[in-house]
Amino acid sequence: LNGKATARANTNIALVKYWGKRDAALNLPAVGSLSLTLEGLSTRTSVAFDGKAAADSLLLNGEPADPRALGRIARFLDLVRARAGIKEHARVESANDFPTAAGLASSASAFAALALAATRAAGLSLDDRELSVLARRGSGSAARSIFGGFAEMQRGQRADGEDSFATPIASDWDIRLVIAATVTGPKSTLSTDGMRHTAETSPYYDAWVRMSEADLKTARDAIARHDLEALGTVTEASCLSMHASAMAARPAVVYFHGATIEGWRIIQELRKSGIPAWFTCDAGPHVKALTVAKHASEVEQALARLGRTWICKPGPRAEVLEVNA
Amino acid sequence: LNGKATARANTNIALVKYWGKRDAALNLPAVGSLSLTLEGLSTRTSVAFDGKAAADSLLLNGEPADPRALGRIARFLDLVRARAGIKEHARVESANDFPTAAGLASSASAFAALALAATRAAGLSLDDRELSVLARRGSGSAARSIFGGFAEMQRGQRADGEDSFATPIASDWDIRLVIAATVTGPKSTLSTDGMRHTAETSPYYDAWVRMSEADLKTARDAIARHDLEALGTVTEASCLSMHASAMAARPAVVYFHGATIEGWRIIQELRKSGIPAWFTCDAGPHVKALTVAKHASEVEQALARLGRTWICKPGPRAEVLEVNA
Repeated sequence: LNGKATARANTNIALVKYWGKRDAALNLPAVGSLSLTLEGLSTRTSVAFDGKAAADSLLLNGEPADPRALGRIARFLDLVRARAGIKEHARVESANDFPTAAGLASSASAFAALALAATRAAGLSLDDRELSVLARRGSGSAARSIFGGFAEMQRGQRADGEDSFATPIASDWDIRLVIAATVTGPKSTLSTDGMRHTAETSPYYDAWVRMSEADLKTARDAIARHDLEALGTVTEASCLSMHASAMAARPAVVYFHGATIEGWRIIQELRKSGIPAWFTCDAGPHVKALTVAKHASEVEQALARLGRTWICKPGPRAEVLEVNA
Repeated sequence: LNGKATARANTNIALVKYWGKRDAALNLPAVGSLSLTLEGLSTRTSVAFDGKAAADSLLLNGEPADPRALGRIARFLDLVRARAGIKEHARVESANDFPTAAGLASSASAFAALALAATRAAGLSLDDRELSVLARRGSGSAARSIFGGFAEMQRGQRADGEDSFATPIASDWDIRLVIAATVTGPKSTLSTDGMRHTAETSPYYDAWVRMSEADLKTARDAIARHDLEALGTVTEASCLSMHASAMAARPAVVYFHGATIEGWRIIQELRKSGIPAWFTCDAGPHVKALTVAKHASEVEQALARLGRTWICKPGPRAEVLEVNA
């Protein structure tokens, strides 16, 4: 086999947050989640299986990846090889079309692009559900980046995880996510570690898990009727509940920096002045605001003092750019 | 009756936090708490019952108080009048020996001093337990400021609140609390309102209440053996759990400002560099660090860029300065 394929996937931001795993080995989430895939923040990945390669290799933005990242990719490729019944090693090249130094690099776009490129290079042609299940093994959030626009990740019930995948939510709602990248540098606690520690030590974790179904329904209903205030309210509440569950872990897991809280306060002030914007942030310090096209520039201007900003539209689904299997 | 008395009480900082009421009318806490009374941050209050006064009056730091503050004081004086069987109105003068503009003004020192001055001016001589129960009616935290050093507030079980009072924890431990006053201005959410809203809407409130007994025991044991790390760890955890319970309320109650989180991060860095310091903060933005005398200056220097700082020793119990009943 000498198959090669290139795919691109966009990152996504969870509006109803994913936090906690029901099975670490299969990367099964303890809660469902609901996200918006973003235009303009994508990863482009090529995978070439090569009978002569002695081991998997990985170039990230043109540089050889560190052993930890390579190991994670190699374990993911093992899943693809097992499924395709092949043994060849792969040369993987992956690049983000946004500055990784800004700390927005995303395992969501990375593993969605890799799942698509690697399966096509291996001669497989998976359907969306199978792709989403596979991408989930690399990163829980990657399961959602198979799809464009709004997507909902199903927690699922099965022990084998075959019912734990994302599905798209059809919508023509032209919403915006404004991102302000605050402090740079590596995260203090990787999200996988933060999730495990929260589940093991936070007195609030059980309540967090119990609450998620209602938040998902609220968000789903809000999207169906284009109700910005309802979607924004549950977005901000889900984010703060997630961070609160981690902050109550012992010792605490705190992803906020000063600039993150200032961003939250700026967004509150925007709302008081009549500009619809709701805060969210992930397992890192950056500030994200949900709004609509009409107000995106005002929101961006208000957040600009925190750092570099982007206005993101709903982005496209993962797609194959080139295949030669 | 023309009794007059002056008393002084020091503020206190809860190490194991008070958040939530089991009875709003009697101001009964849903959880016990454990505090350190602070030297150098006190309120001095004079109460003069005067048969000729047409209404209660209140001078705060030399200025007539606003109607809201006066109303709260008048309702408290009603409790004292009922107990003493008198009807005279009172002239109350109260002053803090620390800058109120710094946002450290405390209802703890205010109502402890008022309870002591008002009862003595009314000819009453209450024991510590009775004083603590009375001060609690003015402000939950005031029940602890009757005592110096460490004090523990009992949640109590009785509907009438007679078993809900503070007791001193005898200790010669020469600990320090470093305060950095960050942003000034009024709080966004008064603590009474924040507590009620948390109890009514936060999915984490029940777990917060359940957890408090264990934290109190941990703190008590740590004080008994002068175990700074154990006391610091539970202090920081109790604070973050309290704020997390409020942050998960819907809508969120967030007392942190950017500078508060920066303070938390500075304190983490201090610990990594071997300097023992643990973060706490109350229903406001200011940063407080628990440490020992030997390291207090280093901690103060590290926090100085956030705002004005104080190093506080354990403070004295509330005391009567003058009485003419």
